[in-house]
Amino acid sequence: MSTDVVILAAGQGSRMRSRLPKVLHPIAGKPMVRHVIEAAESLEEARLHVVIGHGADRVREALADVAAGFVVQEQQRGTGHAVAQTLDSLGDGPVLVLYGDVPLIQPDTLSALMAGVDDRHMALLTVRMAHPHGYGRIVRDEQGRATAIVEEKDASEEQKRIQECNTGILAATGAQLKRWLPQLSSDNAQGEYYLTDIIAMAAAEGVEVLTRQPHGHYEVQGVNDRVQLSALERIHQHHQAQRLMREGATLADPARIDVRGELSVGRDVFIDVGCIFEGEVSLADGVSVGPHCVIRNATIGEETEIEAHTLIEGTEIEGGGQIGPYARLRPGTRLAHGARVGNFVETKNAQIGAGSKINHLSYIGDSELGRDVNIGAGTITCNYDGVSKHRTEIGDGVFVGSNSALVAPLRIGRGATIAAGSTITDTVDDDTLAIGRARQTQKADWVPPHRR
Amino acid sequence: MSTDVVILAAGQGSRMRSRLPKVLHPIAGKPMVRHVIEAAESLEEARLHVVIGHGADRVREALADVAAGFVVQEQQRGTGHAVAQTLDSLGDGPVLVLYGDVPLIQPDTLSALMAGVDDRHMALLTVRMAHPHGYGRIVRDEQGRATAIVEEKDASEEQKRIQECNTGILAATGAQLKRWLPQLSSDNAQGEYYLTDIIAMAAAEGVEVLTRQPHGHYEVQGVNDRVQLSALERIHQHHQAQRLMREGATLADPARIDVRGELSVGRDVFIDVGCIFEGEVSLADGVSVGPHCVIRNATIGEETEIEAHTLIEGTEIEGGGQIGPYARLRPGTRLAHGARVGNFVETKNAQIGAGSKINHLSYIGDSELGRDVNIGAGTITCNYDGVSKHRTEIGDGVFVGSNSALVAPLRIGRGATIAAGSTITDTVDDDTLAIGRARQTQKADWVPPHRR
Amino acid sequence: MSTDVVILAAGQGSRMRSRLPKVLHPIAGKPMVRHVIEAAESLEEARLHVVIGHGADRVREALADVAAGFVVQEQQRGTGHAVAQTLDSLGDGPVLVLYGDVPLIQPDTLSALMAGVDDRHMALLTVRMAHPHGYGRIVRDEQGRATAIVEEKDASEEQKRIQECNTGILAATGAQLKRWLPQLSSDNAQGEYYLTDIIAMAAAEGVEVLTRQPHGHYEVQGVNDRVQLSALERIHQHHQAQRLMREGATLADPARIDVRGELSVGRDVFIDVGCIFEGEVSLADGVSVGPHCVIRNATIGEETEIEAHTLIEGTEIEGGGQIGPYARLRPGTRLAHGARVGNFVETKNAQIGAGSKINHLSYIGDSELGRDVNIGAGTITCNYDGVSKHRTEIGDGVFVGSNSALVAPLRIGRGATIAAGSTITDTVDDDTLAIGRARQTQKADWVPPHRR
Repeated sequence: MSTDVVILAAGQGSRMRSRLPKVLHPIAGKPMVRHVIEAAESLEEARLHVVIGHGADRVREALADVAAGFVVQEQQRGTGHAVAQTLDSLGDGPVLVLYGDVPLIQPDTLSALMAGVDDRHMALLTVRMAHPHGYGRIVRDEQGRATAIVEEKDASEEQKRIQECNTGILAATGAQLKRWLPQLSSDNAQGEYYLTDIIAMAAAEGVEVLTRQPHGHYEVQGVNDRVQLSALERIHQHHQAQRLMREGATLADPARIDVRGELSVGRDVFIDVGCIFEGEVSLADGVSVGPHCVIRNATIGEETEIEAHTLIEGTEIEGGGQIGPYARLRPGTRLAHGARVGNFVETKNAQIGAGSKINHLSYIGDSELGRDVNIGAGTITCNYDGVSKHRTEIGDGVFVGSNSALVAPLRIGRGATIAAGSTITDTVDDDTLAIGRARQTQKADWVPPHRR
Repeated sequence: MSTDVVILAAGQGSRMRSRLPKVLHPIAGKPMVRHVIEAAESLEEARLHVVIGHGADRVREALADVAAGFVVQEQQRGTGHAVAQTLDSLGDGPVLVLYGDVPLIQPDTLSALMAGVDDRHMALLTVRMAHPHGYGRIVRDEQGRATAIVEEKDASEEQKRIQECNTGILAATGAQLKRWLPQLSSDNAQGEYYLTDIIAMAAAEGVEVLTRQPHGHYEVQGVNDRVQLSALERIHQHHQAQRLMREGATLADPARIDVRGELSVGRDVFIDVGCIFEGEVSLADGVSVGPHCVIRNATIGEETEIEAHTLIEGTEIEGGGQIGPYARLRPGTRLAHGARVGNFVETKNAQIGAGSKINHLSYIGDSELGRDVNIGAGTITCNYDGVSKHRTEIGDGVFVGSNSALVAPLRIGRGATIAAGSTITDTVDDDTLAIGRARQTQKADWVPPHRR
Repeated sequence: MSTDVVILAAGQGSRMRSRLPKVLHPIAGKPMVRHVIEAAESLEEARLHVVIGHGADRVREALADVAAGFVVQEQQRGTGHAVAQTLDSLGDGPVLVLYGDVPLIQPDTLSALMAGVDDRHMALLTVRMAHPHGYGRIVRDEQGRATAIVEEKDASEEQKRIQECNTGILAATGAQLKRWLPQLSSDNAQGEYYLTDIIAMAAAEGVEVLTRQPHGHYEVQGVNDRVQLSALERIHQHHQAQRLMREGATLADPARIDVRGELSVGRDVFIDVGCIFEGEVSLADGVSVGPHCVIRNATIGEETEIEAHTLIEGTEIEGGGQIGPYARLRPGTRLAHGARVGNFVETKNAQIGAGSKINHLSYIGDSELGRDVNIGAGTITCNYDGVSKHRTEIGDGVFVGSNSALVAPLRIGRGATIAAGSTITDTVDDDTLAIGRARQTQKADWVPPHRR
């Protein structure tokens, strides 16, 4: 059976102090509302309805790839009013109401909540709070059935002692919502239509209000400012770290890893402190990642050793090699087995053959290197002429002496040697020594400036 | 009305295990005693009196710019003795006693404490401790008036259950202090004169002891060793992080940012993990700072993207550009709008025009670059001859090929091109191609050493 | 008197999801079982017996340098069965049983536990747990003597309320163990021989069971998965940080330092956030280490300033110099007093004389530099010809211009100057200017590609 999911994402979030609509503020690099959408999509045949308002265009644009209907709530007149905007789009079957600024709700909590919702039952997610002050309390009758939500200001002393609180997340049928929402009143201090008022309507009609609880409070915590945002970010990262450790990665410090995307790990992966993973990253068995590395959209093969302060993006590494420290692999880098990229080296759009080494202080861009190539320290591929990028091809077994400039487009044949300090502009044939430097001369009895 | 503030800063702090006087140990990069001074200076017409002793010269020197009187306490004979050294300098109006090793006292706590101090009232800052063992307890009479401070060893069983404790921070009038301090006795186990004994004198005289409480315990925590120092450092940093988030910055992890000075942020600033800000730094709207950056005394304009592992000091960035990763901008760097400094690049005393790029592995020092200049990878400005630094001027639209050495003093005219691998020693005219490299030659059938 | 110490290290640890035997997983860079061994070795005349099983060869190999007997437990049939494998090797005196996966047990806890063990007394380490569910409870008779350990599933309601729990760590005499272990039964749900059953045997015989407690629960926490491993890693690091602060180091954040080996510090050492120390490192008085540095096996002399993002390995630094930021000192580097290595510089197997400077973007390998040498930016020692490494010797006071390539083997005499942009292949005499670059030429009216 399909489920309509209404996601409220119209709020301004003025306490964020931001030009960005609140629901687009990221947790783990992804807009909050996307976390909610992904949880909703875990439900069977979910049909999404996103209620937008403040920054509507920007939210719609940010979610352009999401299969969802968007409904604009022109004025923010309360949660009941927001859900009411979607009534025309809803079926008569189960409907779940979620919030774009309550990002960490979990799929299994949602499926537990939806179970049992039918013409005679709606469902409400509640949490028990040690300090419930300020929250709407769940009032139950003598049979223990939830009959109403009473707000702090309306609560009796006895009701104030109730610890079970409303989360706002609920489910009913579309038929029920179509019956109840038009009856909501804005006759209250805020002048708003409150969705939670349907609880009392349900009780009055004899529709039972099932209550369910999330695994953790974090699932129902909302974000109103950046302090709360950071708290949920940390909780989310804590969960990522726990998952990685259970899957076979040793983390030097679970409190000092950030995963913003999908990180998959093999067995016996080691990740040192201060690392960040973004986009889709996979680390195969035995990969070790040194401290303070950033890896984005990369596939790292078995037994690769990545040393401290390395940045990798858009790269495939076959495995068995050593990368870094201070290496920067930019998009389009492909390292064959055992290839090595060392300190202060930048690669970009470069295929590096098996066993080849670029150990120090080099820039290798738009290049293809064969096997067992040795690139000396301070080598630069001059790939840019101010207009276009040109390619450098270097054959198997080439030895490039230090401090060389390789002016592309250029082909260096297999087995060739480039003398240190050369600028190479023309094709170098196989098994050839190419030299492009001046002969050394001397002036004796030289008095340098500081001794004059 | 003016307030005399006595700051006790004479202690040795032997548990610090340091050659540095205790009060000079820093919190957030600033000596502890300076935090106290700044809190004191928030009071209207504060007149500061700093009691120094151990390392007196060093403390005086470290505070040379502070408008304060310094009084040397030759022997450390207790807090009462210390304050007594200042009696000659005090007026008869309100006097506040603070401690140079209790650094996080807050201005509003001080103003609340001072309110009401007059000939008939003194004031004492107290805190309620869940575990008061070891602290002086506040004894009150049946009317609830504080009448004495009783130390742990002198306390009855009933007094030991008192949870309200002395912080040592108090205020009285100069007239009172001049009356009471000479009466203090050193007839106790330590042979010291205790300032807290004036509480009983006040009570005996019928001077009411007003009590006030700080917002948090951290305000009255003292530092006796580096463990305590680090605890207060963390609390201070936590507060900084909270402030930044409230002001509109998203922090990837509020527990992993260090602010040692004044950091001002615009809206929608993002700061990734592991960053440190020192001195005066301002980040305008939309600035993002990647992980593990250190920024010191810098002004960063709108929408600047600073990437991972970048170090910036004494720099102005107009905005809109991308900096790093692994960029090091040293003092005197000024980047116009959209200028880009990339990986493994060092700049120093360099003005970089709008839209210019220094993307890789370069050193640009003592230089002025026009607009839309492109500096190839591996370019070095040779600004130092062993004695003096010389300047390099590069006109608009110049293209410097990779691996070039630009020997200063040097002028490269607008629109000129420097061929890759060149060493340039003489002026290059506008719209000229300059080449300073040898022609490439080859030796065929070359057998490199590893194949011999 | 000697003590036999039996260390159980045969378990598989399937929840680690690892090819590495569980006891070899590291805490602070050292296999867990080594921490246990070191604690055991603190006992007078300890004789170690390590019971191995899963991954026996790998464990034996990892401990090849340890003076211990190894006994293979072919099948894992319980702790009693494991200890029984060592009976032939044990004397009749005191025997201590430890666990290779309970790594943070402390020496003074062990010595307290061993005190009093004799023919009439055995000893058991116990802990009081607020939530003892799942642990074996210590049952005591009316005189308060421990008489049995009752497992959760066998415990009465009253016994379940007991908070004193078994840690598994115990001591008895060899004579006792030889008497009791053969009597153990595997007649239980797991079909295993439980060492803890000897408690009841002792009580039945009238051998008193002395109980002792560790200082902290962490001492008896075992590791079954990587989540638990990380928890103990953090506790261990916390203790390291506390020790360093007590010894005179200021840590910017005690939660963000990792010590994996032996770090010794002088007074007034400052260590910024994110640093890692591995192997044997000593930091003399007044050393400051900037953020995000990694230092491995190094001796750092007084007043050395190490700036951000510096990596140091196998290096001796005399002191007084400034290193980094982004410096990488590799093994064999020796810096004399005041020598300076700056950003994007790599050194390897290099002696650098007093006052010499390598400030920017250089690679200095297999080199010996005299005093007051100035190495310009972008200087490369070309030490590798594809087969061998060759040496570069640079005399006192040499000035190497920027962007130079020094082709080894090479000797540059004292006082010599190398012109910027040179490739130097031949010996340079004392006080000589060596030039190895082409003369600059120009082509006027050049139209660069992007203007064509």
